[in-house]
Amino acid sequence: MKIIGLGIAGLGRIGKIHFKNVDTFCENAKVVALSNLSVSNIDWINSNKKTINIYKRFDQMVNDKDVDAVIISSPTPFHSEQIKIALDAGKAIFCEKPIDLSLEKVIQVNELVNKSRIPFMVGYNRRYDPNILKIKKDLESGVIGTMQILKITSRDPFPPDIDYMKKSGGLFLDMSIHDFDMACYLSQQNVKKVYSTGSVFGNKEIKEIGDIDTAVTTITFENGSIATIDNSRKANYGYDQRVEVFGSLGMSISQNQLSNNNIIANNKGIHYSKPLGFFLERYSQSYISIMNEFINCLIKKKEISCGIKAGLDSLKIALAAKKSLNENRVVDFDEIK
Amino acid sequence: MKIIGLGIAGLGRIGKIHFKNVDTFCENAKVVALSNLSVSNIDWINSNKKTINIYKRFDQMVNDKDVDAVIISSPTPFHSEQIKIALDAGKAIFCEKPIDLSLEKVIQVNELVNKSRIPFMVGYNRRYDPNILKIKKDLESGVIGTMQILKITSRDPFPPDIDYMKKSGGLFLDMSIHDFDMACYLSQQNVKKVYSTGSVFGNKEIKEIGDIDTAVTTITFENGSIATIDNSRKANYGYDQRVEVFGSLGMSISQNQLSNNNIIANNKGIHYSKPLGFFLERYSQSYISIMNEFINCLIKKKEISCGIKAGLDSLKIALAAKKSLNENRVVDFDEIK
Amino acid sequence: MKIIGLGIAGLGRIGKIHFKNVDTFCENAKVVALSNLSVSNIDWINSNKKTINIYKRFDQMVNDKDVDAVIISSPTPFHSEQIKIALDAGKAIFCEKPIDLSLEKVIQVNELVNKSRIPFMVGYNRRYDPNILKIKKDLESGVIGTMQILKITSRDPFPPDIDYMKKSGGLFLDMSIHDFDMACYLSQQNVKKVYSTGSVFGNKEIKEIGDIDTAVTTITFENGSIATIDNSRKANYGYDQRVEVFGSLGMSISQNQLSNNNIIANNKGIHYSKPLGFFLERYSQSYISIMNEFINCLIKKKEISCGIKAGLDSLKIALAAKKSLNENRVVDFDEIK
Amino acid sequence: MKIIGLGIAGLGRIGKIHFKNVDTFCENAKVVALSNLSVSNIDWINSNKKTINIYKRFDQMVNDKDVDAVIISSPTPFHSEQIKIALDAGKAIFCEKPIDLSLEKVIQVNELVNKSRIPFMVGYNRRYDPNILKIKKDLESGVIGTMQILKITSRDPFPPDIDYMKKSGGLFLDMSIHDFDMACYLSQQNVKKVYSTGSVFGNKEIKEIGDIDTAVTTITFENGSIATIDNSRKANYGYDQRVEVFGSLGMSISQNQLSNNNIIANNKGIHYSKPLGFFLERYSQSYISIMNEFINCLIKKKEISCGIKAGLDSLKIALAAKKSLNENRVVDFDEIK
Repeated sequence: MKIIGLGIAGLGRIGKIHFKNVDTFCENAKVVALSNLSVSNIDWINSNKKTINIYKRFDQMVNDKDVDAVIISSPTPFHSEQIKIALDAGKAIFCEKPIDLSLEKVIQVNELVNKSRIPFMVGYNRRYDPNILKIKKDLESGVIGTMQILKITSRDPFPPDIDYMKKSGGLFLDMSIHDFDMACYLSQQNVKKVYSTGSVFGNKEIKEIGDIDTAVTTITFENGSIATIDNSRKANYGYDQRVEVFGSLGMSISQNQLSNNNIIANNKGIHYSKPLGFFLERYSQSYISIMNEFINCLIKKKEISCGIKAGLDSLKIALAAKKSLNENRVVDFDEIK
Repeated sequence: MKIIGLGIAGLGRIGKIHFKNVDTFCENAKVVALSNLSVSNIDWINSNKKTINIYKRFDQMVNDKDVDAVIISSPTPFHSEQIKIALDAGKAIFCEKPIDLSLEKVIQVNELVNKSRIPFMVGYNRRYDPNILKIKKDLESGVIGTMQILKITSRDPFPPDIDYMKKSGGLFLDMSIHDFDMACYLSQQNVKKVYSTGSVFGNKEIKEIGDIDTAVTTITFENGSIATIDNSRKANYGYDQRVEVFGSLGMSISQNQLSNNNIIANNKGIHYSKPLGFFLERYSQSYISIMNEFINCLIKKKEISCGIKAGLDSLKIALAAKKSLNENRVVDFDEIK
Repeated sequence: MKIIGLGIAGLGRIGKIHFKNVDTFCENAKVVALSNLSVSNIDWINSNKKTINIYKRFDQMVNDKDVDAVIISSPTPFHSEQIKIALDAGKAIFCEKPIDLSLEKVIQVNELVNKSRIPFMVGYNRRYDPNILKIKKDLESGVIGTMQILKITSRDPFPPDIDYMKKSGGLFLDMSIHDFDMACYLSQQNVKKVYSTGSVFGNKEIKEIGDIDTAVTTITFENGSIATIDNSRKANYGYDQRVEVFGSLGMSISQNQLSNNNIIANNKGIHYSKPLGFFLERYSQSYISIMNEFINCLIKKKEISCGIKAGLDSLKIALAAKKSLNENRVVDFDEIK
Repeated sequence: MKIIGLGIAGLGRIGKIHFKNVDTFCENAKVVALSNLSVSNIDWINSNKKTINIYKRFDQMVNDKDVDAVIISSPTPFHSEQIKIALDAGKAIFCEKPIDLSLEKVIQVNELVNKSRIPFMVGYNRRYDPNILKIKKDLESGVIGTMQILKITSRDPFPPDIDYMKKSGGLFLDMSIHDFDMACYLSQQNVKKVYSTGSVFGNKEIKEIGDIDTAVTTITFENGSIATIDNSRKANYGYDQRVEVFGSLGMSISQNQLSNNNIIANNKGIHYSKPLGFFLERYSQSYISIMNEFINCLIKKKEISCGIKAGLDSLKIALAAKKSLNENRVVDFDEIK
């Protein structure tokens, strides 16, 4: 069995996860090269992983003959350029989301990727969460019939740094975009129109940078099915990640995963633990699974289902949601181009 | 302790429930008169409840000196006229919802009721469901902080008769209106804007009469809090009635009440029962409680919280939802007048 | 349809419940006579229920020609004598549990009842709890196969008065006896042997009167199936009533009924309410159902399943448990006679 | 930080798990040597893990100077001899359970281990399951007060091979022994007496070899607290592993871990998945944690809490349970010596 050689651009929080996961859980792949590292990362690699080539620049790494595919986990503004370089070198690409905040750039990348026919995956890891895969299976097997209503609740335990939010594009682009991709993935329908309403509760800084911390988005799909997505930057009880699909024959629900399965009963009531941690913990399995799926598609030359279109569609919904909120009106999906 | 004498107009499905509940569960009230009865109901009363006066017409009953208050559970088109008659006679009024399908008429009734200062209650029984009262208590005690998002799932086990739907005003007016009232009751906020989207799935008849069977409505309140309400005429797994309030300090949820508390575990999985019946069963306690609250307010001369304004506001939201769906746009609550 | 005339002996806590339930929920029965009342009860009856005959003594009431059946809810020491009087008068009998604390007397009553062929029911109301009826149904329908292990958890929210416990016969006779009847009812097997172990935790008074507050009893049935019953006088989290049947094809569980179906999520965790109240609340439906079953058997001349044998068997298990604890050994059921 | 060199005796099912876990999840340890391997295991090691020394015999491996500690995962009959060899060589020992089926041998090993003061751990991995650790924490923090009743439900999804059962010592020695250790671990009390009752349901082969497939064991501890343990060789709905501690201030429960957190609702009811797999899956985390705890104790020279006494006590309870069943009587713990 061939072993896929991987080059990773950027070892930030997510880059490190992919690095560790490939090392521990991907039998058929190996990290052979790294680029765009911080000084401390370089030191760590040099003293622990002597066999990995370190490159200063992405274009150097891409041309390492042992690199079969690249993982782009650099900051978002570098993504589109690095994608182009990797495409030129003919290397398969796994790119973290979002591909870019600019629709124009993502449309461009979309064309290049499609033309190139080079394998491309965007890192919507939540699609590979076991709970979500179960819902997908329930939809495909027909046990819940035709999807009519999709409800996604996605609330973070606390907001990100204000500096992050200033550059992230706002709640719809840095947070809801995961849920928008989920809506597309589960419905397998084209979006017809988008409506968003939102507010800021009590966080002055968020208001000052023009962002919101609470939002409800309604997506109507072409076949009439409806997704309603509610987001909050701060759920006091922890990370709230629930998905519910209501279909003509039944309902499939992914509940929150709690920190533990224990119960305490006392004179105040019956108590369960809070939901599990934050995204790195909650979706730890999905990061492993998406990487294995990427490797697997490369080895077996299977088509990648979570491709460039997923990156484009989710961005378009996020931009439509933003437009809807700003202009206080329903936005036709066709308007976003 | 004074016993309140009640006259009931109409002994249809809901009228009968009030009759039985007063008889069995309201210590301080007694049904002394009835009007607008069918022949079979008259026969039944004559052979079982000889001490109750039967009147052909509502105006006759209202003037029975033993009648302190009336319960109007006649068909909706009779409501506004009967309210006027009762107001003229100075009798307290409990009127089933909706007060009327015509906004003009309800506005008129609103003015008359307010001018008269006669006690008036509208039959939004679900406010008195123990689960809903618990959420209300959680909101008032401050344990969940300020409400930011309200989620109501309200799905019937099967659609009503097509003949009923033809005259009912449609899904928003015969079904969602309960949820719209719930949203007002729990938020205690003025509505700012309403957006609805909806579809018909598979029921040709519903489509032909111009109604929908699936809808999501988003209400934005003046303080920025948001309610999202999803409705379906037919949930294959039974009557789905859930309410979730997400606040700044926590979340309060009213889950579905199941048919029983039992579990079966077998080689297919772990199985719970379906949700309990339909509204008469699910909300049986709330019908008792609302009637006791009405009686109690009369006896103790307390203000009735579920008054004419509740009837007016819920109708206005329903009409806004209908307009939003028809015109595919966000509707300002001020437009509805 | 014939209406059964009932005479109730004693209007203590349980007597009152039967009185109210017959009045409100039993269409085919009517309380026509009462005996052995306190002064305050006599006053209340005289001013509210003028049509009911009040007798000083039980033998007087039994001979009222309108009395078809008696409900014996007097203190336990009176039960056996009153049963004999009612049998002599040929009146059907509903007797509260326990029939008597003396095995000799219950054996005697058993013989008299069997000889007389007069309808007799013992008040093991929990058999008629909807959750227990569901388990029974699961056993009878075969969906869980042959019962192998039965687990009953039965813990009170707080201990009874010390004066009550002094005369009650102790934990096995006043509390576990319900669970022992449940074990017989669900297993439909003859008992082979009984083992009990128990302790007192922290309640000095209970220790002083020679009782225990914590016990585990294991019953082995003739077919090899096993029941394990754990009891406590005081569960800090409330009334704990759970039953679990493990069978060859699956498991059927009756969970605790909680005070409400609501959930609060906050920064401490996810919180459900405590179990519902105490036995009067938790088993309120079962008191209604057992009385309707009694009436129904009389009207339809059906055999009563919860008859004198149930009273005898449960007492014998309780005495075996007591003997096992005292003598620190396994007790053969045959020893109890 | 020192890296602990490990030698593993035997690469059967459990040996392989320890091997993989040390490789993947134990930062401070490394497998440096193996002994007692099958031919296929030797081939696999030679082609994949060239740097590991392979020894034919355990005594050879023990004397490898890079081996700091041994993991004894050979068949049970070899344990006691290998322990002695390792003790003689002064190497720390992790030994799989049971240490031996012979009480005499385990008493001997106990003495040698205690005399030697060499670190020794017995592989009761379930103590390190996150759910069990949570219960332990609840007991230690005092939130549930003094333990009064401990309920353990432990049922396998299907029985082991008949050949395994013939040599395993029977249900109490190969299966319940885990639960007996759990009872000791959670109660931290000395055992006073043991009672077991058991049966065979429908499996003729199990009956023929003199074993049972269903058992309930009651352990009374010296302070009066009681453990009730129910076991079955075959739960149709899957691997059932529940622990419940009832204390003076509350109750702490470890529920079953299900295969997934999803729910399906349809016209048959509301469905959850079956419990997760079997012990290798259900307790996968505990195998990692116990090994890390072993390593950690060696590095930090901490005392090992799950030591030789745990192996001795659990065996003694199992033998007491067997005696109780065979002789149909309560067995004092002191009798077992």
